Amino acid sequence: MNKKDNVLIIGVGLCGSLLALRLAQRGFKVEVYESRPDLRKVDISAGRSINLALSDRGLKALRLCGMEEKAREICIPMYGRLMHDKQGNTFSSNYSGREGEYINSISRGDLNALLLNEAEKHENVTIHFNKKCKKVDIENTTAYFKDTETNEDFSEKATVIFGADGAGSALRKSYISERKFLFSYSQNYLNHGYKELEIPADKNGNHQISKGHLHIWPRGDFMLIALPNMDGSFTVTLFLSYDEGEFNFNNLTSEEKITEFFQKEFPDALVLIPNILEEFTNNPTGPLGTVKCSPWSYQNNLLLGDAAHAIVPFYGQGMNASFEDVFVLDEILNHFERSREIESWETVFKAYQKTRKKDTDAIADLAIDNFFEMRDHVANPLFKEKRKIEMDLEKHFPNQYFSKYSLVTFNEHIGYQEAMNKGRAQDKALLNLIADDEVHTHLNMTKDELEIILEKVNKQTEEILQEDKIAGL
Amino acid sequence: MNKKDNVLIIGVGLCGSLLALRLAQRGFKVEVYESRPDLRKVDISAGRSINLALSDRGLKALRLCGMEEKAREICIPMYGRLMHDKQGNTFSSNYSGREGEYINSISRGDLNALLLNEAEKHENVTIHFNKKCKKVDIENTTAYFKDTETNEDFSEKATVIFGADGAGSALRKSYISERKFLFSYSQNYLNHGYKELEIPADKNGNHQISKGHLHIWPRGDFMLIALPNMDGSFTVTLFLSYDEGEFNFNNLTSEEKITEFFQKEFPDALVLIPNILEEFTNNPTGPLGTVKCSPWSYQNNLLLGDAAHAIVPFYGQGMNASFEDVFVLDEILNHFERSREIESWETVFKAYQKTRKKDTDAIADLAIDNFFEMRDHVANPLFKEKRKIEMDLEKHFPNQYFSKYSLVTFNEHIGYQEAMNKGRAQDKALLNLIADDEVHTHLNMTKDELEIILEKVNKQTEEILQEDKIAGL
Repeated sequence: MNKKDNVLIIGVGLCGSLLALRLAQRGFKVEVYESRPDLRKVDISAGRSINLALSDRGLKALRLCGMEEKAREICIPMYGRLMHDKQGNTFSSNYSGREGEYINSISRGDLNALLLNEAEKHENVTIHFNKKCKKVDIENTTAYFKDTETNEDFSEKATVIFGADGAGSALRKSYISERKFLFSYSQNYLNHGYKELEIPADKNGNHQISKGHLHIWPRGDFMLIALPNMDGSFTVTLFLSYDEGEFNFNNLTSEEKITEFFQKEFPDALVLIPNILEEFTNNPTGPLGTVKCSPWSYQNNLLLGDAAHAIVPFYGQGMNASFEDVFVLDEILNHFERSREIESWETVFKAYQKTRKKDTDAIADLAIDNFFEMRDHVANPLFKEKRKIEMDLEKHFPNQYFSKYSLVTFNEHIGYQEAMNKGRAQDKALLNLIADDEVHTHLNMTKDELEIILEKVNKQTEEILQEDKIAGL
Repeated sequence: MNKKDNVLIIGVGLCGSLLALRLAQRGFKVEVYESRPDLRKVDISAGRSINLALSDRGLKALRLCGMEEKAREICIPMYGRLMHDKQGNTFSSNYSGREGEYINSISRGDLNALLLNEAEKHENVTIHFNKKCKKVDIENTTAYFKDTETNEDFSEKATVIFGADGAGSALRKSYISERKFLFSYSQNYLNHGYKELEIPADKNGNHQISKGHLHIWPRGDFMLIALPNMDGSFTVTLFLSYDEGEFNFNNLTSEEKITEFFQKEFPDALVLIPNILEEFTNNPTGPLGTVKCSPWSYQNNLLLGDAAHAIVPFYGQGMNASFEDVFVLDEILNHFERSREIESWETVFKAYQKTRKKDTDAIADLAIDNFFEMRDHVANPLFKEKRKIEMDLEKHFPNQYFSKYSLVTFNEHIGYQEAMNKGRAQDKALLNLIADDEVHTHLNMTKDELEIILEKVNKQTEEILQEDKIAGL
């Protein structure tokens, strides 16, 4: 590992651009190759999620690179969920009982552009657009590209190659096709796909529904959500089965049926989406998949971000996890620099996976859990009572109680796995205490009453963790 | 679905040969293609596990096909585990406290030959050896082969194609490469590989160690096991990490180091394996992988056995699960025949997966669990006390208590998933009752004492299942 090493990054999406920036800041010579055109010059948003949830883990990595403030300028805070029932009634549920804890709706393209601009300020970074990676010779750290404008093929050899090329990673495919080592790999699709629609701004350019919330229309087997954009519009996403249930993507093929579906299930949303038929028909239906694999690295090659761990979007953590990858890799680099040992990239990469993999596995599983939570549980009375108690506990004991959602989203100093283990045990404790009528709530709980609940929850949580530990021997 | 349909089966290993036999018995015209030579004429055992554990689920499927008695003639019953410590001391642990519950060591090749002989008695079955399937055109149910003797390529069109072609299934690979549908797929390797060795028979052709046991040398991070063969020998298998720990497959490269390893860890086994150095050097090291996928079927194609769900060998259920596939498919066929509806194969295959997938997912996970149990937990005092209590409970309450091992292995009338859920909760209950000193045992427990334990275990198990249910909302 040496500052003169040639670093090659495949992909300059959110993860690739932050990685390029950080490695440039650390003094490496960085060449980046991206299959698509420069998104600052060409609109390439079609079919991709155009806004995302940015939260504390992502902000932590942006801060490391000096980009937090610029990112915050294009953020729209969302303080909680706003649920819409079939009659158009709404109820809200905050993400946290503490002050100042919220998630942010942010444009994927605008944030990516910020990072590209910043990366390009560094002389030691060169970004090549319209260069599609076809494969990587992983033993010779040589990447093979096609220039999508000239159709010419060329290859680049580097000291080290980072695959930040997303869920369909060419580097990951080369790990599979080259068969040089035992590669554990999974791709798992939900039976649901997604389709994006739009609620435009009103005549004055304002948001037509609350912009301080992530809106959810939970319907059990399917759901609609909406996140605000800076221009007053909302990006709406329908999550629906491809082939199961009365309504599904495979049978919503006529204008009548699409209208019937929205009128029956989402009447208050329907009136806000003027181009529903056109958008429903023309916008692509995307799959929802989880990718896990191991090892992430082979010799001097490393997968990062979605290329290593693509997850479903339901925890709003995909981008945050990818940014946190860059943060964790940076910490590993610091560790080896401090030890003043000259370490090989291979050693660095193995240490990185050892630290990081358990956490990206955990957020992948949490994201699947949240699919069921968002489309179904949020409307369940037991779940709603749990959230009410959790908000009260977080408000009155801000340094002592952290819900699973808070542990995952706002506690960026612990890993996803720790957040998952603690959070799941706590959920189980609290839900069972409520179901067994061992905790009682009313509208205005006193701090003393809440303290009793806190103690019960903590005791039960500890017991659950202890019993699991004994069962695992 | 029609008796005149042309059925094509790829692979005539254990699963393919039982499937061919059963479909022939049901009256279908069956053509089977196998890449290897006829194992009744050529020894092709090299590198494959030459004996396997046959238990009640496998026997249930053999019974359906009228093959149980013939199989039992070549079975060696194993009544329990015999653990060997580093000093050569042994202690045993039965598989069940009930009479007549045991697993069987059986030769893979001999059992396969029995099934091939029986299948070939049917005029409507033709088996083609030395025909390697290269790929399948899944929309036209046409399989492409190479004749490995003549090198000629040819193709066969069928009404329906079954892929019983094992963990490296050509049909499964065609599902991936043809990209006609969203295919969820995982291959996960353990960090351990395996290598087979042999304890030969003594001069008189007798077994040198107890043939009524499955022998285990548990060493925490690795282990050795041995299963008896009819000829007086034992097939020994070493399970060891490729690259971790003081001794591993990557560093056991010199005769000195191999000898040092066995002398230190398995001295009593070493003296029984005369050709250790030759066998260790020449026998291949195999990987240990789990394959899961979904959907198993596409139109008129279906994956069965290892092709659909390859599992690690630690529960002794790989062959049993594959045989049970044939049993379950047969039940689905019965169901549709009884309903007198003319169903498409596609409908049959979807119904089959809906019934079966949850169970093969469960046995895959149970098999991983048992890796840790066999190499480590069996020597743990808490685990040993649990097994002692379970044997007493099964002996005194044979119709009321079934350990997880019994539920999985001997209770063939419930699915693997039900066995797993019940068994895991019960293990957790019992281990925690022992750890919390809430159940006490001594050498000669009375039935009254055991009844109190049984009630406690049942109560705790129910509570655990109920708490999990509430936590899952």
